[in-house]
Amino acid sequence: MSLAEQVLEGNIRAAARLMRDIDDGRIQAIDELKALYPRTGNAYIIGITGPPGAGKSTLVDQLTASFRTRGKKVGIVAIDPTSPFTGGAILGDRIRMNRHSCDEGVFIRSLATRGALGGLSRSTSDVALVLDALGMDIVIIETVGVGQDEVDIVKEAHTTCVVMVPGLGDDIQAIKAGILEIGDIFVVNKADREGADRTARELSTMLEMRHAAEGNWHPKVMKTEAQRGTGIDELTDEILAHRDFFLSSKTMDNFLRERNQRHFMGILRDTLLKKALLFMAQSGYVNRVVTSMGEHRIDPYSAVEEIVSKMMPDRVD
Amino acid sequence: MSLAEQVLEGNIRAAARLMRDIDDGRIQAIDELKALYPRTGNAYIIGITGPPGAGKSTLVDQLTASFRTRGKKVGIVAIDPTSPFTGGAILGDRIRMNRHSCDEGVFIRSLATRGALGGLSRSTSDVALVLDALGMDIVIIETVGVGQDEVDIVKEAHTTCVVMVPGLGDDIQAIKAGILEIGDIFVVNKADREGADRTARELSTMLEMRHAAEGNWHPKVMKTEAQRGTGIDELTDEILAHRDFFLSSKTMDNFLRERNQRHFMGILRDTLLKKALLFMAQSGYVNRVVTSMGEHRIDPYSAVEEIVSKMMPDRVD
Repeated sequence: MSLAEQVLEGNIRAAARLMRDIDDGRIQAIDELKALYPRTGNAYIIGITGPPGAGKSTLVDQLTASFRTRGKKVGIVAIDPTSPFTGGAILGDRIRMNRHSCDEGVFIRSLATRGALGGLSRSTSDVALVLDALGMDIVIIETVGVGQDEVDIVKEAHTTCVVMVPGLGDDIQAIKAGILEIGDIFVVNKADREGADRTARELSTMLEMRHAAEGNWHPKVMKTEAQRGTGIDELTDEILAHRDFFLSSKTMDNFLRERNQRHFMGILRDTLLKKALLFMAQSGYVNRVVTSMGEHRIDPYSAVEEIVSKMMPDRVD
Repeated sequence: MSLAEQVLEGNIRAAARLMRDIDDGRIQAIDELKALYPRTGNAYIIGITGPPGAGKSTLVDQLTASFRTRGKKVGIVAIDPTSPFTGGAILGDRIRMNRHSCDEGVFIRSLATRGALGGLSRSTSDVALVLDALGMDIVIIETVGVGQDEVDIVKEAHTTCVVMVPGLGDDIQAIKAGILEIGDIFVVNKADREGADRTARELSTMLEMRHAAEGNWHPKVMKTEAQRGTGIDELTDEILAHRDFFLSSKTMDNFLRERNQRHFMGILRDTLLKKALLFMAQSGYVNRVVTSMGEHRIDPYSAVEEIVSKMMPDRVD
């Protein structure tokens, strides 16, 4: 039985192995993903994003417990910001989610980039696909909300929760102005801290100024203390309210169309680059070019033009 | 006279225009960059990275003043983390660097991604190239230190300063563990705050545990209060000390080789994707594929294989 078939039967170890194959960039993983693809689209994807120190991990932990009491299976993809440097998921297995470790209805996966060809957002969507195929009702993607990579990741989610925290300094205020556009729900966590009410009020005011049109979703600002579990049930309810809105609106069609287009383009980019690398490896081209560049005999733009015209002689121009 | 020639003569308006062309992804910009390339490699590039709220902008402002008093021309590329959302550089022109605005020896450029093909790191290295050609002695790249994009940007710098700040919560501590590997100098800014000494001590301890080999650079931990200008001269000295080390060591050769290879690969990836887009536009392929994907009639992997085999029929496989 193929890995894909085992995953579709709910085999957790097969899912873990497929995710490892995806991480390692194994060619076989693509065939398994192809086989899974027609059977996916059932999981509801929730993105949790916000600055470091906002308490996202704890919040995800509490949300998971909340969805579990409602009988939902939960898969979690935790994007570890340290990993680009270390090649491993530090936060991931260290402190996370001990209390769910014996629960078969929870599957947690930490993701690192390791300079992978496709980047973090590709790996994330592939892993979410596996969790979907595995039968998870909810997939939570947790990521630090700074940088293009993270924005791309959030685009995978049906409902995006932006987590803020009182008193993280001025830069955060500026980021907020930008992050308003991606949040469906805003969470002021650590709401027992000084300034929580002010942060929540400021957020509400900024959201009102967006002049959301009739028929659009109006994002709410929620307050939580994830450490104590305060406000978690209300947040879960609001996420489900947004899901109901999302599934009944034409947003869904646009969302799926954009997501499919993005996936296609991402895979196209990787595939083309892999082909080019193979082509150049056969001819020892890269080393020659880098040496020429080092001696300032050729600029990288001209070097690329040369190799591309060799790869695609008359087809495209 | 071409834009490139004007830039090489130190024409600031020509440089600004070329940077705008780069931002807009204009084809002509590539020809100008080709012309500039052989005349670059003179500027010393300093990366300033760290979490939001660490006071990086103020620190860059002070460093700029410090280098100016030492007779150096300073170019600044400020990466604005808000911009992926808003399409504009909010922080950039709002609060930044008013006191240098009449100084011809300082050139400041804020960068946004706007979902550009090449991504932020490509734009950054292109803009740094223009500042180099313009005759800037020092180019400072300021970026938020989270995510793969930011790590790629930092790789462009000869000397990287990681800016930390006391008391930003637990996640920051975890990030530090990863960020140790990219810093040549560590700065604890806002050193008047409670916990500054502890943060500095923790950093020093973690750095010592790396067991830096004989002959390697040993990163120092510096304390600054950028707001008041405290510690800035010492930081400038340390940056210059690292520059001396860098220029005299074999690190330089490896650095240039890796950078050239990275630039080549980045440009190659963009060029291939552009060719593919052009090819597909001619045949109306993308829309057909996205529709098929929406109906789950084809998975994105198979769709990509199909188009690539049409683009490169028998050349590469």
